[in-house]
Amino acid sequence: MKNIKIYNFAKKIFNYPRSITGSGVRKTLKEIKKIVPEIKIISVKSNSKVFDWTIPKEWNVKKAFIIDPEGKKICDFNENNLHLMGYSTPVNKIISKNDLEKNLYSLPRQPNAIPYITSYYKKNWGFSLTHRERIKLKKGNYKILIDTNFKNGVLNYGEIIIPGKTEKEVFFSSYICHPSLANNEISGPSLLTFLADYIKKIKNRRYTYRIIFVPETIGSVTYLSKNYKKMKKNIRYGFNLSCVGDERAYSFIPSRNKNTLSDKVSLNILSKKKIIFKEYSWNSRGSDERQYCSPGIDLPVCSVLRSKFGEYKEYHTSLDKLGTVVTAKGLSQSFDLYTEIIKQIEKNIIPKSKILCEPQMGKRQLYHSISIKNSHSTKDMMNVLTYSDGNNSIIDIANLCKLDLKKVKHYIKILKKNKLIEFVD
Amino acid sequence: MKNIKIYNFAKKIFNYPRSITGSGVRKTLKEIKKIVPEIKIISVKSNSKVFDWTIPKEWNVKKAFIIDPEGKKICDFNENNLHLMGYSTPVNKIISKNDLEKNLYSLPRQPNAIPYITSYYKKNWGFSLTHRERIKLKKGNYKILIDTNFKNGVLNYGEIIIPGKTEKEVFFSSYICHPSLANNEISGPSLLTFLADYIKKIKNRRYTYRIIFVPETIGSVTYLSKNYKKMKKNIRYGFNLSCVGDERAYSFIPSRNKNTLSDKVSLNILSKKKIIFKEYSWNSRGSDERQYCSPGIDLPVCSVLRSKFGEYKEYHTSLDKLGTVVTAKGLSQSFDLYTEIIKQIEKNIIPKSKILCEPQMGKRQLYHSISIKNSHSTKDMMNVLTYSDGNNSIIDIANLCKLDLKKVKHYIKILKKNKLIEFVD
Amino acid sequence: MKNIKIYNFAKKIFNYPRSITGSGVRKTLKEIKKIVPEIKIISVKSNSKVFDWTIPKEWNVKKAFIIDPEGKKICDFNENNLHLMGYSTPVNKIISKNDLEKNLYSLPRQPNAIPYITSYYKKNWGFSLTHRERIKLKKGNYKILIDTNFKNGVLNYGEIIIPGKTEKEVFFSSYICHPSLANNEISGPSLLTFLADYIKKIKNRRYTYRIIFVPETIGSVTYLSKNYKKMKKNIRYGFNLSCVGDERAYSFIPSRNKNTLSDKVSLNILSKKKIIFKEYSWNSRGSDERQYCSPGIDLPVCSVLRSKFGEYKEYHTSLDKLGTVVTAKGLSQSFDLYTEIIKQIEKNIIPKSKILCEPQMGKRQLYHSISIKNSHSTKDMMNVLTYSDGNNSIIDIANLCKLDLKKVKHYIKILKKNKLIEFVD
Repeated sequence: MKNIKIYNFAKKIFNYPRSITGSGVRKTLKEIKKIVPEIKIISVKSNSKVFDWTIPKEWNVKKAFIIDPEGKKICDFNENNLHLMGYSTPVNKIISKNDLEKNLYSLPRQPNAIPYITSYYKKNWGFSLTHRERIKLKKGNYKILIDTNFKNGVLNYGEIIIPGKTEKEVFFSSYICHPSLANNEISGPSLLTFLADYIKKIKNRRYTYRIIFVPETIGSVTYLSKNYKKMKKNIRYGFNLSCVGDERAYSFIPSRNKNTLSDKVSLNILSKKKIIFKEYSWNSRGSDERQYCSPGIDLPVCSVLRSKFGEYKEYHTSLDKLGTVVTAKGLSQSFDLYTEIIKQIEKNIIPKSKILCEPQMGKRQLYHSISIKNSHSTKDMMNVLTYSDGNNSIIDIANLCKLDLKKVKHYIKILKKNKLIEFVD
Repeated sequence: MKNIKIYNFAKKIFNYPRSITGSGVRKTLKEIKKIVPEIKIISVKSNSKVFDWTIPKEWNVKKAFIIDPEGKKICDFNENNLHLMGYSTPVNKIISKNDLEKNLYSLPRQPNAIPYITSYYKKNWGFSLTHRERIKLKKGNYKILIDTNFKNGVLNYGEIIIPGKTEKEVFFSSYICHPSLANNEISGPSLLTFLADYIKKIKNRRYTYRIIFVPETIGSVTYLSKNYKKMKKNIRYGFNLSCVGDERAYSFIPSRNKNTLSDKVSLNILSKKKIIFKEYSWNSRGSDERQYCSPGIDLPVCSVLRSKFGEYKEYHTSLDKLGTVVTAKGLSQSFDLYTEIIKQIEKNIIPKSKILCEPQMGKRQLYHSISIKNSHSTKDMMNVLTYSDGNNSIIDIANLCKLDLKKVKHYIKILKKNKLIEFVD
Repeated sequence: MKNIKIYNFAKKIFNYPRSITGSGVRKTLKEIKKIVPEIKIISVKSNSKVFDWTIPKEWNVKKAFIIDPEGKKICDFNENNLHLMGYSTPVNKIISKNDLEKNLYSLPRQPNAIPYITSYYKKNWGFSLTHRERIKLKKGNYKILIDTNFKNGVLNYGEIIIPGKTEKEVFFSSYICHPSLANNEISGPSLLTFLADYIKKIKNRRYTYRIIFVPETIGSVTYLSKNYKKMKKNIRYGFNLSCVGDERAYSFIPSRNKNTLSDKVSLNILSKKKIIFKEYSWNSRGSDERQYCSPGIDLPVCSVLRSKFGEYKEYHTSLDKLGTVVTAKGLSQSFDLYTEIIKQIEKNIIPKSKILCEPQMGKRQLYHSISIKNSHSTKDMMNVLTYSDGNNSIIDIANLCKLDLKKVKHYIKILKKNKLIEFVD
């Protein structure tokens, strides 16, 4: 049931004309708001300075196409928004085929793919098309119509804060600037929408969850510039969601500092679910983890992905489609994986013994009251307790005790109930 | 000669009716006092709070036995104090065999062994017997007589402080609550008594020695509750003595934090004596090291044992006997091992060069005054000196220089005599 | 061309009668001053206290020889200054062959070698000769003439400070107390003279260079006693130059603390030049690194040598000659090696990102302005930037990015030019 929901949501928003600014972003955020009404949609004015960056003018497209020498409309933005180079300037003129060629983009080695092209920060215009279509273009004059608009508007992003018992945070981020591309990237925001819905229904949430939907790079930079001090203070776990919709592979990109709590929980869940995955190095990063882990920001952000960006053939082309690349099953599996991660985070406490020396287990009915040879039944629980020194998380304790994490959780529950341990941050 | 002494001492105190409190403990401590008059015997009142624990009432046994349907006395405490469950409540009644069975303990797989049973913290009564004897019990009525007494008395332990040149301490602990059991545990207190005697005779002792004889668990918890701050400050080496009397195996249990000075010295001596031993993990702990290394206490306490508790078939049964399990030779070997450890501790100084740059060895006649090709005779000494930086103990230095510890000690002696190094804590 | 210069310089100073004090040292320093006029020649009075040492009286030799029973002059200091034991007291007497023998030194297993003998700190006299010559000595009386002079003079050393942009220093040391010995040690001071000349010509030197020529041991101890506080504060890299003149081997002696910047740069250059070398441990040290790395001094001083002292057969004998052991080519190769090390040090900055998050590369023309699938051309540069966190030197970054150091330097240059990174110490 769940999988259909995420997939259908992805399908619904797939063709919205997303870019780093503009109406496509807002339409997408409004659809998310229908699922998670708690989302705050925030606007930051064009030309605002955000760290090293300046928010570009808002860009909107009314229409864009080419009329070929025979009067046929080609490269129509309305048909596929990948046809138009992102942030193309307005054009209305007739040019020769030769001049047109300078502004056309195609992939000779993938003749059926329309490549995804942008030029956010340098004035330019262009059209993308399949190489197959391109080589058929005839000599003659072409009418170019690009009815786009740049204005001093806003950059939008969405932020959901779901409060928990503690101010400490779990952070999720995905991006909403890619047009009609499925795995990279309608899968991330679609999955994250339903994860947000899942998280807000968790009873007795321990952590506060910070979930954001931002345009890639400029959006995460903008968000960090406004929030990084608080984020650095509070975030204990963080994940960047990208390429989570196909069912062909699993991948992992660690945080820059490695061995953070996020890395440990992710690897523990992947191993527990016996998932075969490709572990990339930090050098293979490519999405907003670039900002979240940058020197001086240093958030504990890692990524569990399916087929990683740049590593599958449909990447950044019109072939990255719903149905063939991204599937309901793929999205659903990713949902299950991340909910497991969340469950484990909620339970991955760092226990600390509240008393000095061993407690008297007998008076709490935690020991057999009669001691007889080899009654080792509470040995495991005592092992869990001996490592509860305020430094080890329960994943560390499971490793130290050579116990299944489930068993460790069981003992931690008993120990907590008996007030023998407390949880520290 | 020495071995006979320890063994005879063990033999003498073997049948004293020890438990965690009561006259058997006091009788045992008084025998230790005959060998080491410096021992202070300390009493802590019943019902006192010690960390998470409450000292139980003092328990003493006048007599305890069963009269079988044929009038025969069985399970007689006077014959073997293991027959009575430790801390049995007083009973004086006639019951059917069926009702009796609920309070009998035996080991079907070790039909000749009387198991060691206690119920310190829950009111109960019971008898232990061999399974062979148990299956012969006939139908009929049994007279139960348990003439025990609970009173607001005291818990006793013994403490020997043998002062040294420094306040820094070496700590030894063993326990005196086990009744007629040999390896676990009359071997520990017997050996420790003679180690105390040995230690007080060491001339120019560097360290202060803290040696305690406590009832297991409740005794070490009590002792720590009164002394742990000073202990944490001063103790540099610590050992829990248990199962040190048989000659069948050697075992090692590290401290919880591993790689403490105690761990290093123990492993160095075991290796130097070419002893084959089984190295257990901290998870295999079981004696008072559980308290000494608990989170927040964190003393550097490890154990060198012979056949480890829980790991030999006679453990916690009447088969754990003097003569068959514990031998004069076994005790004597353990004595030798621990005196070696002590000797090395006394010498395991952390040297620190007193001068900057290399000293002028020549003016101290430490070099050949004539330098000629390949006169490397002082090379080793200079290597020892170069690592004397106030961080490395001489065991570390031996490893760094790839030298026998004996040679390192030799050079350290020369360097100290020449005032080139000092010893730091 | 260069190699001839160093070799010719070595040849020129080879026969100067060097010892730890005296005219030979001054003559040598004056020759160095001809190449590097910036050198300051410093005098420290005899009997001065320097750490544990006392500067000995200044020793000078007018002449020294033996007249054999047949009137033949042998062991003539003028012919080979190795014939006279360093610091021999004045002698003018006739003695029997038997008495003479007590003061003769030769090497039976190297019958053609005159061994190098000294007795700096104990009054003594002696002659060295080849074993071949020695066994031919006839019975009879021998006239001994040693016209040496001890006076309250000075110990000399040379110091060159070549200032750079920063107070942080690179330190080089070699020694000038060995008489006519080639690899150990006319090679070190000869090479260092021309390295100083090279260094002062480096444009825009980043570091300040501290280059000293000292008598071994007593000289480095003296120098440290006067300068070690400043040295500890400022020195980032340090090298002791010894045995750098033959072409038969390469060797490496790490600093006592290992993994200092000096160690890393040395190993990086050796590996980059694909040089096969023998890596010794700190325990194999033998030259002034003994002082520079001693506990409490702890400078980051390591050594890249050719055939290491004590490890080649001609060591400390008259066979350690120019031409056979030390060659123009050997010296020249070592020069090249050390200039590579210096070049890399000058460039081995520790970059730190100046901005939070990734910078906008596009506005600096560092990105392709048009984003199209798989345009990874700036990936490497971004990897370099992501590790520029103020902790990693560019050698570390090269390892982390799996990039050639040259490429890292290229990117660092671009990033610096664009004010995206700064260099920290």
